[in-house]
Amino acid sequence: MEEPPNEWGKKAWEHLSLVRTHSPLIQCITNFVSMDLMANTLLSAGASPAMLYSAEELHHFTPRVSALTVNIGTLTPSWLPAMNTAAQLCSSLSIPWVLDPVAVSASPFRLNACLELVRLRPNVIRGNASEIIALSLASSTQPALNHDAAPKGVDSVHESMDAIEAAKLLAQTSGAVVAVSGATDIVTDGNRVFGAHNGVAMMQKITATGCSLTALIAAFVAVDKSHALDAAMSALAVFGVAGELGMKMAKGPASLRLHLIDALYGLDEAALLSHVNVTTLC
Amino acid sequence: MEEPPNEWGKKAWEHLSLVRTHSPLIQCITNFVSMDLMANTLLSAGASPAMLYSAEELHHFTPRVSALTVNIGTLTPSWLPAMNTAAQLCSSLSIPWVLDPVAVSASPFRLNACLELVRLRPNVIRGNASEIIALSLASSTQPALNHDAAPKGVDSVHESMDAIEAAKLLAQTSGAVVAVSGATDIVTDGNRVFGAHNGVAMMQKITATGCSLTALIAAFVAVDKSHALDAAMSALAVFGVAGELGMKMAKGPASLRLHLIDALYGLDEAALLSHVNVTTLC
Amino acid sequence: MEEPPNEWGKKAWEHLSLVRTHSPLIQCITNFVSMDLMANTLLSAGASPAMLYSAEELHHFTPRVSALTVNIGTLTPSWLPAMNTAAQLCSSLSIPWVLDPVAVSASPFRLNACLELVRLRPNVIRGNASEIIALSLASSTQPALNHDAAPKGVDSVHESMDAIEAAKLLAQTSGAVVAVSGATDIVTDGNRVFGAHNGVAMMQKITATGCSLTALIAAFVAVDKSHALDAAMSALAVFGVAGELGMKMAKGPASLRLHLIDALYGLDEAALLSHVNVTTLC
Repeated sequence: MEEPPNEWGKKAWEHLSLVRTHSPLIQCITNFVSMDLMANTLLSAGASPAMLYSAEELHHFTPRVSALTVNIGTLTPSWLPAMNTAAQLCSSLSIPWVLDPVAVSASPFRLNACLELVRLRPNVIRGNASEIIALSLASSTQPALNHDAAPKGVDSVHESMDAIEAAKLLAQTSGAVVAVSGATDIVTDGNRVFGAHNGVAMMQKITATGCSLTALIAAFVAVDKSHALDAAMSALAVFGVAGELGMKMAKGPASLRLHLIDALYGLDEAALLSHVNVTTLC
Repeated sequence: MEEPPNEWGKKAWEHLSLVRTHSPLIQCITNFVSMDLMANTLLSAGASPAMLYSAEELHHFTPRVSALTVNIGTLTPSWLPAMNTAAQLCSSLSIPWVLDPVAVSASPFRLNACLELVRLRPNVIRGNASEIIALSLASSTQPALNHDAAPKGVDSVHESMDAIEAAKLLAQTSGAVVAVSGATDIVTDGNRVFGAHNGVAMMQKITATGCSLTALIAAFVAVDKSHALDAAMSALAVFGVAGELGMKMAKGPASLRLHLIDALYGLDEAALLSHVNVTTLC
Repeated sequence: MEEPPNEWGKKAWEHLSLVRTHSPLIQCITNFVSMDLMANTLLSAGASPAMLYSAEELHHFTPRVSALTVNIGTLTPSWLPAMNTAAQLCSSLSIPWVLDPVAVSASPFRLNACLELVRLRPNVIRGNASEIIALSLASSTQPALNHDAAPKGVDSVHESMDAIEAAKLLAQTSGAVVAVSGATDIVTDGNRVFGAHNGVAMMQKITATGCSLTALIAAFVAVDKSHALDAAMSALAVFGVAGELGMKMAKGPASLRLHLIDALYGLDEAALLSHVNVTTLC
């Protein structure tokens, strides 16, 4: 069952236009590797990034943001109070927030941190297939029992399409919209499942593209809080199309990174209408 | 009252040449988002950046540097001892240092950290209009009383020209030269006020350009310690001209970032003489 | 005594092909400035970077990695337990690890941290000439006595060729292969000494190129554990050739950085056979 692609292209354009118009303030509590590209991705999309994360100022600052992203890439125990406090503030104030469970199965420490964050009700969870499978498994049962069965490492060892059932289950148990990056990007609310067939493989050869996409989802959800599924889908499609346009100019990962950001900045309605390719998967 | 632009262009060229000849060692205690671009900006200008910040080694290292920049972008309490110690060392040893009060009004924690740093007598303070207005207001009176009246957030909600009086007042109370970035960059010692009409708007769409400019000011002041006002003005003009030249090659924020750094590296006297546009504002 | 350059070119190609085929997982415990370029360098070479460093998860994660790099660029005391634990795990599990003693002579704190790490038996140590000379001197005698004689600062004040004897001595006392970056890159096991005459001077105007090279060495040693000398030499040559090819397209340090990474991604056998220039120095 395929929807007319231009419907999703139109939606993506509407979301991007809202981000450009409203310039939502997006707080990013994120890993050190991703800060530069994440901030530049948000700026190029029209949003306003802020990497503040000190526990001393969250009560003053976080209530003023339009959305929050929490990313555990370079997690240490000292980050946890800020992450949990900011997430709690957002949940209690109905400010949307997005969780990126980077390398969730690398250790029980990391898994337990994610499970705690999931309990604080993120509006969207985005990861690669291995991360979503591991988190879904751990969320639905006793994590200690399942850890050894979970995949290990940073990069995904699964295809995104293998994660559809895990993503639906995680969405159902967590209440979050779940997005899975991969050759086909998948988004589900636990009931409907959509796939975006945009993007290029070389984007995986650029560090922090996944993290930056998560922040972009936060910006899109910020301008359409009541439709997190649609907003997340739009963000995935927009980032993928920027990658496709960038790839036309690129000669390798570094030039792709540059042209992707330039393309994101310059995206117009015509490009989205002709390139966005989203289908209903189930 | 406009001065001949080539006088300032000549001065900017002299300062840049001194940086290239002496390659001053610039210690940067700065936020995580800015470290990469800041280091590359300093290297491209001919300076030698060092991001060391451990309290354990400041007494050995800081006395050897040519200048210091302190930037509170991703401030947490654990950074404060290093920032204060390094600033104190510089002040007591007559090593110039520059303060960047990023998002100073985001929280009382941040404001109080800045006020403490201002008391350690920075040679230059550089911020956007909202930051300078907030810091000026807080420096001149009781901060606790004024906080709620101050602007909040990371990006400026004021034009730089709106900050002239606040900048002059902050310069008078702190003893620092004060620089305000914006469509017109403003520099004042509390008495004279100059404006640099260089740069392009898209530079605001690149994260850490403001932070990197602050570090560049430190490098310029390092080679002309007794004329902090002129050196800061030169740094603002040089960075702005590099942005203008870079913009000719750019197709978006990411390519502007690349071409700005390349242009800074390749700047020659003719380019500065023909592009630098500094005027006396009052 | 010069070996046929194509022999080393062939070896470099074999090593690079192994990295691309096996995609070794490289853990990087490194400074904040270098994380972005280091991760992108590893990805472009075909390796899989992971910047995890929390002491809470090293016992779960580090045993699964193919190699580790430890870089002390932005060292604070809080990093030391993780660095030492990860290094110990690697040594005890015969996982190769590489030490980058950034600015080792900036303070006794930094020097002592390096000496402790050297005792954990890195497979390779890579630094600039000043760093290797300082570390060699301190490793062979009583560090407290020698510190004041050591060079200070971040950038090298020595030519790489001046460091040959120091590098040999450090290799002998530490048991590590020692690599010295410079106009000629030097690699020694304490007995043989080879030089790579690749690379371009402008690479020193890009922050974190040295750090990224160290991580690349780790990836190369990961796929040829029993020949650390050859693998390190190949990594130096490959990075240098990528710089030479990138320089043909570059107009300054920022475009060189971009084209270097693109060139590393696209390197083929013919380019290495025609460009790699390694000689036996003694």
